[in-house]
Amino acid sequence: MADYRKMWEDLGMDVEMHDQLCAVLPQAFGDVYLSQENRPEGMDYYNMVVADIHGIRPAELIEHQEKGGKVFGTFCVYVPDEIVFAADAIATGLCGGSQFWVPGGEKVLPTNTCPLIKASVGARLDRTCPFFRIADMYVGETTCDGKKKAWEILGEDVPVYVMNLPQMKRAKDVQAWAEEIADFKNKVEEFTGNQVTAEKLAKSIKLINSKRKALERLYHTRKQDVVPISGRDALLISQIAFYDDPARFTQMTNALCDELEQRVENGVSVVPAGTKRIMLTGTPLAIPNWKLHNIIETSGGVVVCEEMCTGTRYFENLVDETKETVDDQIQALAERYMKINCACFTPNEGRIDDILRLAKEYKVDGIMDVNLKFCNLYDTEGYFVERALKEAGIPVLSIETDYTDSDAQQLRTRVSAFIEMLNH
Amino acid sequence: MADYRKMWEDLGMDVEMHDQLCAVLPQAFGDVYLSQENRPEGMDYYNMVVADIHGIRPAELIEHQEKGGKVFGTFCVYVPDEIVFAADAIATGLCGGSQFWVPGGEKVLPTNTCPLIKASVGARLDRTCPFFRIADMYVGETTCDGKKKAWEILGEDVPVYVMNLPQMKRAKDVQAWAEEIADFKNKVEEFTGNQVTAEKLAKSIKLINSKRKALERLYHTRKQDVVPISGRDALLISQIAFYDDPARFTQMTNALCDELEQRVENGVSVVPAGTKRIMLTGTPLAIPNWKLHNIIETSGGVVVCEEMCTGTRYFENLVDETKETVDDQIQALAERYMKINCACFTPNEGRIDDILRLAKEYKVDGIMDVNLKFCNLYDTEGYFVERALKEAGIPVLSIETDYTDSDAQQLRTRVSAFIEMLNH
Ligand code: SF4
Ligand code: SF4
Ligand code: SF4
Ligand code: SF4
Repeated sequence: MADYRKMWEDLGMDVEMHDQLCAVLPQAFGDVYLSQENRPEGMDYYNMVVADIHGIRPAELIEHQEKGGKVFGTFCVYVPDEIVFAADAIATGLCGGSQFWVPGGEKVLPTNTCPLIKASVGARLDRTCPFFRIADMYVGETTCDGKKKAWEILGEDVPVYVMNLPQMKRAKDVQAWAEEIADFKNKVEEFTGNQVTAEKLAKSIKLINSKRKALERLYHTRKQDVVPISGRDALLISQIAFYDDPARFTQMTNALCDELEQRVENGVSVVPAGTKRIMLTGTPLAIPNWKLHNIIETSGGVVVCEEMCTGTRYFENLVDETKETVDDQIQALAERYMKINCACFTPNEGRIDDILRLAKEYKVDGIMDVNLKFCNLYDTEGYFVERALKEAGIPVLSIETDYTDSDAQQLRTRVSAFIEMLNH
Repeated sequence: MADYRKMWEDLGMDVEMHDQLCAVLPQAFGDVYLSQENRPEGMDYYNMVVADIHGIRPAELIEHQEKGGKVFGTFCVYVPDEIVFAADAIATGLCGGSQFWVPGGEKVLPTNTCPLIKASVGARLDRTCPFFRIADMYVGETTCDGKKKAWEILGEDVPVYVMNLPQMKRAKDVQAWAEEIADFKNKVEEFTGNQVTAEKLAKSIKLINSKRKALERLYHTRKQDVVPISGRDALLISQIAFYDDPARFTQMTNALCDELEQRVENGVSVVPAGTKRIMLTGTPLAIPNWKLHNIIETSGGVVVCEEMCTGTRYFENLVDETKETVDDQIQALAERYMKINCACFTPNEGRIDDILRLAKEYKVDGIMDVNLKFCNLYDTEGYFVERALKEAGIPVLSIETDYTDSDAQQLRTRVSAFIEMLNH
């Protein structure tokens, strides 16, 4: 790992505390990832990205800032990156996925808050993540209770712009979201000093669509009988998609897909034939939250799909590329983004349809409905999800977990029993 | 108590289970209320209402239905009753305030859900509350995560119409709320078959404003050095305001106020001079949740104000009565309702201003920031509330509780210590 100490100090980070994180991450990554057999060679790129996760990409973002560019930090797949890139700025995901940051969040947030929010607030306030330091502006949204209030706390430490996401999906709500995107465009223009023209927006729409297509292609290889890539590796790629340079990410992911498609053709699988195919559905798994994938894949199962924001919700549906005015492009953005089915909407029946469809497409043997502790939205929606799966005759295991390791043994027992049950 | 058994059976209630509730309520009410000394005579009316809470008013609602009228059940002070009454329908509050209903809610909702939501869902699904049976249509809103999802569950058992409350308070959000109110009007017209004319709406605006004025007058008497009414009694009145006939309620409350104003003039107080004046702020206290008021007022304090939806948030600010078209009236409604400061908005700075203002107006000695367990919104906002109070030098005690009695002893200890501290 290169020496980024000076950069971290310049970012005002708590370097000593950050050292503790740096001391454990390589081991954690090695245990979960490097121990896998028969990994695709194309994973080398993502290994490298993770190995220097707080170095390489942060250095690129700082270089961009030194040239006068801005960086926007986001927390939800509803926030349209296209607008940011069209203003020659960079968008980067900021959701925290490590228990390391949780105690910092708990200093100001109720314990009864979902770990993703606690980790995100803690990473900022404890100054232990370069991405949280670098972002010039955070973009929040009104998706869930915990986030609505977290913006107010974060807003005392860093500029936070909040988008009012409608809570329903009627025609007028799509229009309201288009208006919010237009307001966001104005804000981004003002903050960056760069105009979002139809030409630039067309380019960034294509850029982000290409990333979506690369991910779609990756996920398509997981639909095959031969499983050319582990769920752990696919999850890592989904996580890296949130903050890597979109063009490079697309290129590297397409290169990996070449290899995976070749594997499918050659019948090269990372798991023995007959390994039970598991789909996860539920709350997002922010980097470095690999806990459940690791447990499943070391308990005799393989994860073939994630109906999650770190998964299909991130890349399904493309933005219409044929529009020629900024207004029409914004309309196209609103329509694409409002197709995402998140439990923050009432109702959210589309998600049930998605899950049933994906279960077929990915030929899954069983589904785990995964909830981050204290996410009331997905937890309550689980009532409908699990009922629908039972009606469809698809075995389902309901799991609630957080970022700690304290429940790992218990989870392993339940996951093993579930896979055992699928095997008989 | 009159025999309403037949009525309850006709409502499809679980009468045997309901008997258990009827068996304990009088005792609970007696313990908290009838044991008080020197109560105003005007409280007789409210005593009577509570004594037959599942009889008298339900019978009136059924009579209204037999004449072809509709009943709408609501769960939030943002839903404009004026629209309902203007369509010759009746609005009634439905928030559940008893632990009795919680287990029924927990059958379908996560345990980590606020007791108000669990009790409301349980009251419906267990069929143990006549109001929940009578309402022809429920009106939900997108205020918090738990409620957003609860509508979907309730919607499988009863018609639920959901209003999309904006999550922010910019000018365009007030406009969006006006549009939601207009849509609601159309829905109510369609459902009742009655048209909401400007004339009828003007009448119902006046009707509900009168109720607000009566409550404002009641609360005004609590600002005086002489405390003419206990916090328990004032809370009971606030709770009954949600489902009583508005005209009768206004009349009876004004009659009580005559008595209370006379008491102030004569220096008649329900507590000894120097009793510490407590204000509560936070989540609503739905009937029959009298737990905290009872503890405070039997621990040497007196509650003089509730900055709660069962309190000032319900009656402060009147709707402009001078508008002459339905459109303008709806605009006036939107403007009045958007002045309510609930933690479901981001940001919600207005609430801090309200609390500081009310603390002065009611000459409070200390504030209790009360949170229903698992209400993430008010819990997180407590961070700002308590900081502002500390800065203002106002003593504050943070309390988290639910509907069970299990924490009563511990609460009593903490409340006593707080009042003790104020006394020294
Ligand atoms: S789960 Fe919902 S709120 Fe969270 S990132 Fe996904 S879309 Fe956004
Ligand atoms: S997992 Fe749930 S509670 Fe956590 S940030 Fe996402 S929607 Fe909010
Ligand atoms: S606390 Fe908020 S959501 Fe609850 S009733 Fe009051 S205004 Fe509505
Ligand atoms: S108390 Fe909080 S969680 Fe409960 S219904 Fe009200 S806003 Fe929702």
